[in-house]
Amino acid sequence: MIDFCLFGAGLIGSVHAANIVRHPKARLRYIVDPRPDAAQRIASLTGAQIVDTNTALADPEINAVLIASATKTHADLAIAAAAKGKAIFCEKPIDLDLGRTDQCLAAITQADVLFQIGFNRRFDPSFRALKQRLDKNEIGAIEQVIITSRDPEAETEEALAGGGGVFREMTIHDFDMARNLLGEEPVELFASGSCLVLPYYAKLGDYDTAMFILRTASGRQCHINNSVRAVYGYDQRIEVHGSNGMLQAGNRTPTSVEAFGPQAVSRDRPLYFFVERYAESYAAELDHFVECVISSRNPDVGAKDGRNAMILCEAALASAKSGRFEPVRF
Amino acid sequence: MIDFCLFGAGLIGSVHAANIVRHPKARLRYIVDPRPDAAQRIASLTGAQIVDTNTALADPEINAVLIASATKTHADLAIAAAAKGKAIFCEKPIDLDLGRTDQCLAAITQADVLFQIGFNRRFDPSFRALKQRLDKNEIGAIEQVIITSRDPEAETEEALAGGGGVFREMTIHDFDMARNLLGEEPVELFASGSCLVLPYYAKLGDYDTAMFILRTASGRQCHINNSVRAVYGYDQRIEVHGSNGMLQAGNRTPTSVEAFGPQAVSRDRPLYFFVERYAESYAAELDHFVECVISSRNPDVGAKDGRNAMILCEAALASAKSGRFEPVRF
Amino acid sequence: MIDFCLFGAGLIGSVHAANIVRHPKARLRYIVDPRPDAAQRIASLTGAQIVDTNTALADPEINAVLIASATKTHADLAIAAAAKGKAIFCEKPIDLDLGRTDQCLAAITQADVLFQIGFNRRFDPSFRALKQRLDKNEIGAIEQVIITSRDPEAETEEALAGGGGVFREMTIHDFDMARNLLGEEPVELFASGSCLVLPYYAKLGDYDTAMFILRTASGRQCHINNSVRAVYGYDQRIEVHGSNGMLQAGNRTPTSVEAFGPQAVSRDRPLYFFVERYAESYAAELDHFVECVISSRNPDVGAKDGRNAMILCEAALASAKSGRFEPVRF
Amino acid sequence: MIDFCLFGAGLIGSVHAANIVRHPKARLRYIVDPRPDAAQRIASLTGAQIVDTNTALADPEINAVLIASATKTHADLAIAAAAKGKAIFCEKPIDLDLGRTDQCLAAITQADVLFQIGFNRRFDPSFRALKQRLDKNEIGAIEQVIITSRDPEAETEEALAGGGGVFREMTIHDFDMARNLLGEEPVELFASGSCLVLPYYAKLGDYDTAMFILRTASGRQCHINNSVRAVYGYDQRIEVHGSNGMLQAGNRTPTSVEAFGPQAVSRDRPLYFFVERYAESYAAELDHFVECVISSRNPDVGAKDGRNAMILCEAALASAKSGRFEPVRF
Repeated sequence: MIDFCLFGAGLIGSVHAANIVRHPKARLRYIVDPRPDAAQRIASLTGAQIVDTNTALADPEINAVLIASATKTHADLAIAAAAKGKAIFCEKPIDLDLGRTDQCLAAITQADVLFQIGFNRRFDPSFRALKQRLDKNEIGAIEQVIITSRDPEAETEEALAGGGGVFREMTIHDFDMARNLLGEEPVELFASGSCLVLPYYAKLGDYDTAMFILRTASGRQCHINNSVRAVYGYDQRIEVHGSNGMLQAGNRTPTSVEAFGPQAVSRDRPLYFFVERYAESYAAELDHFVECVISSRNPDVGAKDGRNAMILCEAALASAKSGRFEPVRF
Repeated sequence: MIDFCLFGAGLIGSVHAANIVRHPKARLRYIVDPRPDAAQRIASLTGAQIVDTNTALADPEINAVLIASATKTHADLAIAAAAKGKAIFCEKPIDLDLGRTDQCLAAITQADVLFQIGFNRRFDPSFRALKQRLDKNEIGAIEQVIITSRDPEAETEEALAGGGGVFREMTIHDFDMARNLLGEEPVELFASGSCLVLPYYAKLGDYDTAMFILRTASGRQCHINNSVRAVYGYDQRIEVHGSNGMLQAGNRTPTSVEAFGPQAVSRDRPLYFFVERYAESYAAELDHFVECVISSRNPDVGAKDGRNAMILCEAALASAKSGRFEPVRF
Repeated sequence: MIDFCLFGAGLIGSVHAANIVRHPKARLRYIVDPRPDAAQRIASLTGAQIVDTNTALADPEINAVLIASATKTHADLAIAAAAKGKAIFCEKPIDLDLGRTDQCLAAITQADVLFQIGFNRRFDPSFRALKQRLDKNEIGAIEQVIITSRDPEAETEEALAGGGGVFREMTIHDFDMARNLLGEEPVELFASGSCLVLPYYAKLGDYDTAMFILRTASGRQCHINNSVRAVYGYDQRIEVHGSNGMLQAGNRTPTSVEAFGPQAVSRDRPLYFFVERYAESYAAELDHFVECVISSRNPDVGAKDGRNAMILCEAALASAKSGRFEPVRF
Repeated sequence: MIDFCLFGAGLIGSVHAANIVRHPKARLRYIVDPRPDAAQRIASLTGAQIVDTNTALADPEINAVLIASATKTHADLAIAAAAKGKAIFCEKPIDLDLGRTDQCLAAITQADVLFQIGFNRRFDPSFRALKQRLDKNEIGAIEQVIITSRDPEAETEEALAGGGGVFREMTIHDFDMARNLLGEEPVELFASGSCLVLPYYAKLGDYDTAMFILRTASGRQCHINNSVRAVYGYDQRIEVHGSNGMLQAGNRTPTSVEAFGPQAVSRDRPLYFFVERYAESYAAELDHFVECVISSRNPDVGAKDGRNAMILCEAALASAKSGRFEPVRF
């Protein structure tokens, strides 16, 4: 049985809390959050005890920490947890600053603790099945990858101002997926960002609409398109072209109902947003983490994956300004 | 918190056990099964205590029983549980004999206990959404219903010989769905049964392949087709034609992956069988039952629904022999 | 080059006229229709000459006649054309009366002329591909066939009163398809007809909504459902279940456009009615006929197919009244 | 009646010839091609007379020319035809050289003749319907366009060496579609070309695999992806994201048959290549041209469209080398 301390009682923290509670081999022992109301809500739903960080990390019965708190606290918590020998599941990003990210990686390496980064989409049943079929060489050599990733809701101006920006908060998942699917590391990245949705994106020097092209050394290419306005629901699709065929993974819908009416045939919109669409992914990434902790093996998606996706974000920010391919150096 | 005793530790019992355990307002206290191994397996997974029927029913803290044991024990257990004032969730059918079914209904009525029959398909998200859209009059007056219901696996000869036959075990779900969707009770039923799959169906006087037509008094019609051989997975579809349109609810697949290859474009087969396809239905029917127990209201699908579906089975058996519309008298 | 005389300048006659004109090996020489306006319209569009029946049949350069005139004239025209040794393409039905149909068949046989009946759906690209895949044994032994056939428009009261009724006018195509797909002749037929759409169907003793079950001697089954009210367009689907899989052929749409909006995802309705949906079938059946005339071989769908489908109509009419399986005797 | 002279008896010339022949208001009078066999084949099929260029253009009864000859002859023929006052339908590109293209435009303007360029995809029923729905503001302001355009067959080394290269021969259609759909002219273009399919593309300094991003002044974006290897058939899809929704137009298939087998559910591959997929487009663009000639109005897609698409090709070639956004100056 793996005993968890959860840091962060927000939306994602709640998702993780529910998955820990449902897991037959895991227990949620502690919840840490500076906001008493949020912490209390999770405590009530799960029976977890509200404690502070030191108490939680000092408890030798705690095997694992799940870091879903504010981004700026990730690195400190991860370093502290590593020092206590805890297995660490950390929401992305490790840190918005690359230097701080590297310090965190060093601490993890030195402490030799298990670390998993929360790139949950790798665990989406459809995306995972697609990846497995690529690995079985079903469509031959990979040539082009096309990732559609569009949010049904923008961030509020306040959240946007306080966060890492769209590339580091949203596109980072797509960059990880690009790395995961291309079969080679990208060496160049081109970004084109626009402001078409909400003026405060422009005011904050950010983009609400973007397109990307990534290239590997052998010439494989990946296109990503992003928007913070998909009025028809969360749009998360992947398409991989290989020398012997193409694989697509599409959206899922709440039901299979189709209505044949006098004007058109209609079906459900895609599932609304990440909590709905990636419900299975969140559960599966936790399963993977628990399994790794129990069997002392490295998770499939670790600290280096977190770092490399962040490096792609940096290249994207540079390219959106320079209007040219920017080199990617991991 | 609703405390349950589960009767029956077989496949369906296990599904219910897992849903009770996961339910925030339910607890699985007891498991009753004459097979020690099966009972022990559920007990280990859930922490439930293995007891005998009398102990379970005598415990005043038990609010609800879930009857998923062998069909022939359903009526006895339901009558005994009713006598003790327990809320009853009973797998279909109540009994293969209509007289015995009526005795059971009388006992439930007399004891004034809450009773839900396990027609889980009513709780399938797609079928339920379709029904809700019918109820909102989205396609006008209902004219024809078409139910496709085909199993990926036949019953073994032994199970078939010991059970109620294909109409009472398999088609009964479709008959319930027909009643649910037609908006009027059927008054006539025509059945055509064949043996095309496995010789022992014929040997036992049963059918492995069947088609049905049901009619209501106003002339609404429902077609059902059944087979015990769907090599492509569990095939569960509904189509309702109304005066202003048509609604379909189709199969679901494990993933959304599509493969574009040199020969064809292919996608996943439908989910394999009822445990996979109706996983959400089993959970949702339990949610409904728990909610009904807590709020003391009658479940949407009760003892009368169990009885009426069985009466349609009887008419179907008669029609398959007579080759004519048989009257349905509820 | 095959020189045609076309009888009948109505809707179907116009479709055939256009296909003859476009055919590189056919010429439309004559048009015969008692309605001068209709005849003139076809003549203007195609350059065909308006003549009377005797003139047309007396011309030795006419190789083939296409009979698309009123149903009651089919048999007379076919018998007259056979006497003159013309190849005959005749719209279904040959005649509404079975005795008259048999006289026509006898005349054709005696004259030893080539005869094709207008069951155009056999030439629909999707239905034909499905049939070819059945013939290649792709899904093993056929077990059940399900035919959906629903019209977007009812007949007017006048047309209905003057015609052969819904079974002989509409279902006859489905009966032919059932024979074509079952791989064995039906021996029993059950029909259930209702009046839910337009009161004059009931007044005329006809049905606007119907379901059928056909059985072959070995127990194969076919379900057909019909309605004269499909507000979402012409609904023409086929589904064949075999021992090793299932084949479906669905509707076609004008375009492939899908709209993802705030409420739903919508796509085109099916093509409107037979002229649109079966445009390719009408052309392909004419191709087949011309090819048969040129190479002196028997068409794939001949007079006997016309007769047998009519016999199924008779059984259906009897069954809708008797409420029982009626025997089919070809 | 519009009398045509067709220049070029190759594959595309044959397609146009057939459409002219089938058109009720057009006649194919002359065919001009330096290859006697090719000319003879078209002449036999259509009844057109084989003549030389001067004879054809000198004939005052010829209203229109259709230029489907080798690319390098397009401008000369167009200029000569303009001088004779003929209406001109010209396959793309007008010329591979921009200076020569401008000379041709000047000649057309001076002669004031009607000119249509062969961007047939604008007439594809699905793409046209999508465009019409954009024009009706169905999805609000356009934000991103995604064009998938992948060929099932590469050019031979010889054809590639003798032609204008992949961007000018293949992508030019996509550039036209981008202009057509963005609602604003592109002002910047980024191209990333790779050689992953056939070594002779690299040897000739060309690309067999490419991705593009186009931007308009207001920040609208368009992604195009190209490949000369789509083993699953011709892949031609469009997706347009707007402020109020998304429209997709997808591939078409030969039939609607779906096969449900033990391993997967499969359906037809997309139609094979442009002759099949764009059969309706070729017919519709000819209809449009004939209609414009008859009514003396300018075609929807004219010489300027041909020129501007070529300018995008130039920018793409520059960008693929420079690795940066290249400006687009029409």
